[in-house]
Amino acid sequence: MSSFEQPPPPLPPGHLRVVPLGGVGEIGRNMTVLEYGGRLLVIDCGVLFPEEHQPGVDLVLPDFTFLQDRWDDVEAVVLTHGHEDHIGGVPYLIQAGLHAPIVGSRFTLGLLDAKLTERRLDSDEVEVAAGQTVRFGPFACEFVAVNHSIPDALAVAVTTEAGTLFHTGDFKADPTPLDARLTDMGAFFELGKRGVDLLLSDSTNADVPGFVATERDIGPVLDRVIGEASGRVFVVCTSSHVHRIQQVLNAARNRQRHVAIIGRSMIRNAGIANELGYLSVPPGLVLTVDEVDKLPDDAMLVLCTGSQGEPEAALSRMARGQHKDFTLSQGDTVIFASSLIPGNESAVYRLIDRLAYNGVDVITRQQAPIHVSGHAAAGELLTVLNALKPRNFMPVHGEGRHLRAHAKLAMRVGVPEDRVLVVRDGAVVDLGDGKASVVGQVSAGFTYVDGGGVGDVGEESLRDRLILGDEGFISAVVVVDSRSGRVVAGPEISARGFADEEAPLDDIRQRVADDIANAPLAEPVDADELRRVIRRSIGSQVSRVHRRRPMILVYVVET
Amino acid sequence: MSSFEQPPPPLPPGHLRVVPLGGVGEIGRNMTVLEYGGRLLVIDCGVLFPEEHQPGVDLVLPDFTFLQDRWDDVEAVVLTHGHEDHIGGVPYLIQAGLHAPIVGSRFTLGLLDAKLTERRLDSDEVEVAAGQTVRFGPFACEFVAVNHSIPDALAVAVTTEAGTLFHTGDFKADPTPLDARLTDMGAFFELGKRGVDLLLSDSTNADVPGFVATERDIGPVLDRVIGEASGRVFVVCTSSHVHRIQQVLNAARNRQRHVAIIGRSMIRNAGIANELGYLSVPPGLVLTVDEVDKLPDDAMLVLCTGSQGEPEAALSRMARGQHKDFTLSQGDTVIFASSLIPGNESAVYRLIDRLAYNGVDVITRQQAPIHVSGHAAAGELLTVLNALKPRNFMPVHGEGRHLRAHAKLAMRVGVPEDRVLVVRDGAVVDLGDGKASVVGQVSAGFTYVDGGGVGDVGEESLRDRLILGDEGFISAVVVVDSRSGRVVAGPEISARGFADEEAPLDDIRQRVADDIANAPLAEPVDADELRRVIRRSIGSQVSRVHRRRPMILVYVVET
Repeated sequence: MSSFEQPPPPLPPGHLRVVPLGGVGEIGRNMTVLEYGGRLLVIDCGVLFPEEHQPGVDLVLPDFTFLQDRWDDVEAVVLTHGHEDHIGGVPYLIQAGLHAPIVGSRFTLGLLDAKLTERRLDSDEVEVAAGQTVRFGPFACEFVAVNHSIPDALAVAVTTEAGTLFHTGDFKADPTPLDARLTDMGAFFELGKRGVDLLLSDSTNADVPGFVATERDIGPVLDRVIGEASGRVFVVCTSSHVHRIQQVLNAARNRQRHVAIIGRSMIRNAGIANELGYLSVPPGLVLTVDEVDKLPDDAMLVLCTGSQGEPEAALSRMARGQHKDFTLSQGDTVIFASSLIPGNESAVYRLIDRLAYNGVDVITRQQAPIHVSGHAAAGELLTVLNALKPRNFMPVHGEGRHLRAHAKLAMRVGVPEDRVLVVRDGAVVDLGDGKASVVGQVSAGFTYVDGGGVGDVGEESLRDRLILGDEGFISAVVVVDSRSGRVVAGPEISARGFADEEAPLDDIRQRVADDIANAPLAEPVDADELRRVIRRSIGSQVSRVHRRRPMILVYVVET
Repeated sequence: MSSFEQPPPPLPPGHLRVVPLGGVGEIGRNMTVLEYGGRLLVIDCGVLFPEEHQPGVDLVLPDFTFLQDRWDDVEAVVLTHGHEDHIGGVPYLIQAGLHAPIVGSRFTLGLLDAKLTERRLDSDEVEVAAGQTVRFGPFACEFVAVNHSIPDALAVAVTTEAGTLFHTGDFKADPTPLDARLTDMGAFFELGKRGVDLLLSDSTNADVPGFVATERDIGPVLDRVIGEASGRVFVVCTSSHVHRIQQVLNAARNRQRHVAIIGRSMIRNAGIANELGYLSVPPGLVLTVDEVDKLPDDAMLVLCTGSQGEPEAALSRMARGQHKDFTLSQGDTVIFASSLIPGNESAVYRLIDRLAYNGVDVITRQQAPIHVSGHAAAGELLTVLNALKPRNFMPVHGEGRHLRAHAKLAMRVGVPEDRVLVVRDGAVVDLGDGKASVVGQVSAGFTYVDGGGVGDVGEESLRDRLILGDEGFISAVVVVDSRSGRVVAGPEISARGFADEEAPLDDIRQRVADDIANAPLAEPVDADELRRVIRRSIGSQVSRVHRRRPMILVYVVET
């Protein structure tokens, strides 16, 4: 994220250092490192999904440089909940050298285990529950129940001799959650009374006024839209949103529809949730795909992945007629019981347009209130600020606009402006004598995962990809005989992504040949000089004739 | 858009042919061709802005193949209003061979003239006004006032012996437009009484229930948010939205702020609107940039371009500190009095995040109702359908989901399902004996403008760009001596967009050399065979070691 670094001073004794390595200035790859007395505690380690200026990469990880050579200092990794942007980086952390125990709630560790098993990795784990306090070295961690769009989420209060830091994790304050596990506002008030020196709080919806509607409101709406469908029904939602899945199952049962579950992550997560008791599947409701396929149209419902328009997810393949089990067509109803994550708009709308042309009825949030956010809106955030009364506040889990909106909320309820820290990833924040201040900036760049590689594709490769992707390239190959010092073959000119026809290249080839012939080249030819002549010849032609700037590649080979 | 073609049968005498070449299944490049008795009428000719699967191109035009060799048959080009997606393709149409007159309202032709002058093009023009009927060959065109987010928009009823086609253009039914020029619903009812055989109607907001709020509601909100700002104020809006500009000017005057106008299109369009009498600039309100820069912060307002986060527009440059006149900083307020066009979300949010980190207060639709859409919502569309009572209906100006939503509205008010045509660009629709039917499909692909070229970048180049942009490439050069038939230089391996370090290439180079040495190559070496060996060698390595699929380029040069 930040390109500059400013080494922090040594951490004074009795002070707590806080370094967000991800999730501050972006939504994704959440990771915060705490340091006290030479020991480290990591809170979350997630992935970020790439944006369009990061083409071709699969995932973006936090920069682990700050932890390099300090793996023995890490006391524990605390996971607040099981979303990918909080746990997805853990396998890479282990591969990088982490050997400390991983701490989380039962469901969080259930999801992590599936991930580690898949990659044949192993780790010590410490299961914790809300209400417990567990000490990891100098860090006393008190876990507090919070409600979110995944079961079993935790906030954590970390107390050292420097004071208490409270990290909300991701949360909202649903007053009637499906599992009756409320955000423990009582504990928040209690902590506020004991004193919170630094609050890190979820900013995702800080610029949304009011309160998030309860998840329980979704149930009746799902029931109604499923009831109104006369044909087959397909519902997509986030595969880790167990309560949403539960409500889909409930509505299906109420409407006498049997359910098939499709999509790798949906099958896996529903399985884990069922096994660990977070999902209650009515007996006989879920059948195999083959069984469901034989039922009348109005007696079946498919629960599947693909709510973000991912081209390889089940829904997109069913829409294209490339899924082995189902093809979506006239009379079907598709229900998006999900959010539209910013950045995915084009993909999702393209999918919905395809469904519309196929005669499929599509129901999204626009048609019916079938989704609520998992993140507290401004009203809830104010309540939390009032409960915790933090001496210092650092908004996290948000892009710039969310952090700024959250900072304003904090100031509105009395946190002094000089104790509100709106920072970026890599900021080094020291807490001592009750005051938090930015003291430096460490490396917090993007670590890219592309195919089998971690970190081999960096900013330089991405810059090249952006040029190649926008403009294509033109290449020239010439062969110089090292004995005679003369050009003996070429220029051979080719191009990709530049023009569909060959004709423009013929002109360029002729002109390059002329320019080589006319250039005042030494004999024997200097390869670098020859390269410059060719590059200049091609560059001036494409700029003048085509008004474009493709990448120009010149290969001078000496025999 | 459509990859298949299905040549239509000859057009029967007395029938009208309707061919949408753009804007049906997409929002942009609107263009419809009507044919009657061998003569053609074109309605609109706009551009489409490329999506992320069309990297690097500047604009997308309709495919003019259908008109090729028929330029003499074109009676006129009717422009419904002056937005880029309706007039932006006209210069290219003229360059392709069009010589028929161009027909439009005063303001529409004003904007077109600026565009043609800039490109040193010329054209016959016919200025028309609402209420007039003008005949072009067999096409009697009756123009009807409609209200939209640009002044002087027209709908057009085209009557031939085949009946009456009504094209709404882009419209909404603002009951209190700023210029008091209402959508002429009376004329719609009158036409309905006389009989509309085929309606083509704007579908942009067909999936939005209700009615669009009036533009007049924006004024007081703008006034309030400008009044609340204590520092400098910057307002962005669409440069052709003259009424929005008018309201910004009015609010500035009311708040005793002088105005500077920044950004090429904003200066040009405001100038044209002022000159033609569509904008009323209070005397002394607008000053030069230098004059405004000298005023106290709370006595100035800058009206500028860049509402879609365009990196080279004034606002983005001011945010980055790269604009010659202003740099946005703490205390400034930026007001987005504009929509967020789908596909631009990431760019706009990135811009707003940068502003947030700079301490700038940003006000968008989320904070205050400072924008209303220019397109009729479902309630208005139903009113229009009821007024016109079309015998046949073809929703236009929309992506698939909008067309389908509009089709459902039409059926709800009584248009029979078999007379509602949800088609794609290139569909050939014949209207005869009061019934419209799809009879074929003509070429309606994307024509790309990239730099100085029109059509030289096609789907093949874009496919290459997508691969290069996601994966980069690896190249290998070898030289074969044609006398000896042996490899005499290389393999030289290089790559771009593949990895930041050189190390992976060393491994690949070694392995390619080994594979060439071990391959059962004929002597003299066959160049194609050698190419295959090298390609396979590189391909298997990157797939196995890196799990990636870069483009592989093999150059075998013979001396």
